[in-house]
Amino acid sequence: MTTRILPATAPLLQALRGERGTALPVWFMRQAGRSLPEYRALRVGHDMLEACLTPDLAAEITLQPVRRHGVDAAILFSDIVVPLRLAGLPVEIVAGRGPVFAEPFRNRAQLAALPDPAAVDFAPVREAARLAVAELGATPLIGFAGAPFTLAAYLVAGGPDRDQLHARRLAHADPALWADLADWLARLTGRFLAAQVDGGASAGQLFDSWAGGLSLADYERFAAPASRVALAAAHEAGVPVIHFGTGTGELLAAMRAAGADAVGVDHRIPLDEAVRRLGPDAIVQGNIDPALLAAPWPVLEAHVRDVVARGRAARAHIVNLGHGVPPDTDPDVLTRLVGFVHEL
Amino acid sequence: MTTRILPATAPLLQALRGERGTALPVWFMRQAGRSLPEYRALRVGHDMLEACLTPDLAAEITLQPVRRHGVDAAILFSDIVVPLRLAGLPVEIVAGRGPVFAEPFRNRAQLAALPDPAAVDFAPVREAARLAVAELGATPLIGFAGAPFTLAAYLVAGGPDRDQLHARRLAHADPALWADLADWLARLTGRFLAAQVDGGASAGQLFDSWAGGLSLADYERFAAPASRVALAAAHEAGVPVIHFGTGTGELLAAMRAAGADAVGVDHRIPLDEAVRRLGPDAIVQGNIDPALLAAPWPVLEAHVRDVVARGRAARAHIVNLGHGVPPDTDPDVLTRLVGFVHEL
Repeated sequence: MTTRILPATAPLLQALRGERGTALPVWFMRQAGRSLPEYRALRVGHDMLEACLTPDLAAEITLQPVRRHGVDAAILFSDIVVPLRLAGLPVEIVAGRGPVFAEPFRNRAQLAALPDPAAVDFAPVREAARLAVAELGATPLIGFAGAPFTLAAYLVAGGPDRDQLHARRLAHADPALWADLADWLARLTGRFLAAQVDGGASAGQLFDSWAGGLSLADYERFAAPASRVALAAAHEAGVPVIHFGTGTGELLAAMRAAGADAVGVDHRIPLDEAVRRLGPDAIVQGNIDPALLAAPWPVLEAHVRDVVARGRAARAHIVNLGHGVPPDTDPDVLTRLVGFVHEL
Repeated sequence: MTTRILPATAPLLQALRGERGTALPVWFMRQAGRSLPEYRALRVGHDMLEACLTPDLAAEITLQPVRRHGVDAAILFSDIVVPLRLAGLPVEIVAGRGPVFAEPFRNRAQLAALPDPAAVDFAPVREAARLAVAELGATPLIGFAGAPFTLAAYLVAGGPDRDQLHARRLAHADPALWADLADWLARLTGRFLAAQVDGGASAGQLFDSWAGGLSLADYERFAAPASRVALAAAHEAGVPVIHFGTGTGELLAAMRAAGADAVGVDHRIPLDEAVRRLGPDAIVQGNIDPALLAAPWPVLEAHVRDVVARGRAARAHIVNLGHGVPPDTDPDVLTRLVGFVHEL
């Protein structure tokens, strides 16, 4: 394993230890992506998964927003289906639609055909992290992974399924098969995160993009157990993890209880209300409304001041958006935002 | 106006008056639709908006689930963009995508070009309601309308926009233009509902499908005022209104405060928790998880018993799904469910 000594004062890592430093750490979900012209230029001729699995390309894309915006963290350029592809599942990312699997997951024979997560080779991901970290200096790298529930939702539907109907059907109709699939995904996700830590990542973020489609009772039963396994694996690898989903107002405390060190909050819940639900010792991440990135600066500035003021209710606060950077965002607004947050 | 005398004991209308009768009323959102083979047969050769605007076709589709399932209400077969089409806006429903407008709404010149809602002719909708009511006997007809926020979200994006980014951008960047658009939509929606009442509808349902994308503060500022106008228009026409959206756990009380007689609850929040948020005198609708329609009957039955038990916390309860009937639902399950609920 690459041993990496980062300054104890790296603002992201301070916040993840629950300490408030001199400036608030800020980074943006999907900061490495379509909002950057240098990203669009680099992606020409490379499809999404190919870009994720080509170490020097993934590393370069990871570094672009750090160079441009001066954010306090890089996040490894990846996609939630990368570990599934590395596990040999036939999956493509279809433009305008998302990840599509050759066949939906529905039965125990398909489960039996899945490889042992311990035998999956994550070398391209480890190498991408290593190359990025070699250039990052004092800026920490965050490892990236989708949470088991969200991965399962794609797998069971065979592609994007906004209401997660297929996944929720299977979970209720065959809870034992669901639990076994979720456990396999959790172990795969744990190893995917550990490979990134091995490459030098200093933290992780677990994206449960679709957890907000579950009631609290279903989340506790069908999502939390596997997330707990994946989060524990990241802890065993030695890093803290931020846990994020959208529409998770009802689930925040349960997401924390699954073992998250910090909880990402989307734009729907003010941070002080999130802290009320999570407890005053909680570390939160968020929650600038991405819709406001296109508003006049004074409107955005007032909103960011409000987000930061409400975030003071938390033990520590990592400033971020409430969801990913919209592709048509003016990157100069993001750069200005980083400077503004650092001066607050 | 068609005067329609319905038995005071129609279970839906009892519930909407806050009375608990001998049996629970039950109907299903999207009960008229793709889950029924007779619907699929009738739709061959007719596109969605044509079907909505052809009175005998819309009436027949409206009646199909009442005949088949014995539900306690019909809901007029329609689409949320029907009033916009009748107002002359170029909109098509694209298969697999949803409503798409010729150009997105972005400026005041487009607002000025919109017709006076009072001058829009709703005759095909009124006639469809009249034809359906003539066959419905003692079963009430519910009028259908999309809420102004959801309509605006489609209009501003020019089509479906899952995160409502375009709408929320415009609302924050130009709140005056947003308010004027929302007010126009509210008046149009009010007249659309009034036309259905004129045709014999005994209640209305206002679908704010995308309200769950808003924080409570944004809902109060950008959605509730126009919903209030639309709900008041339905009341002026003489009928109670059910107000529904998905992912609205944070918004339930505000949706009620906008003037809803009953509040629809999706599968994410148990009904007793919804009542805790709404107040013990609230009338609720919902919230069987559509995902469970495909589960083995004992799993579905246990879930429905739980929904009904939790619904007892409310002053009155209209049994429904937490969202629309999935197109691949076995219609026999719905029929069986109606009988089961009536015996509870």
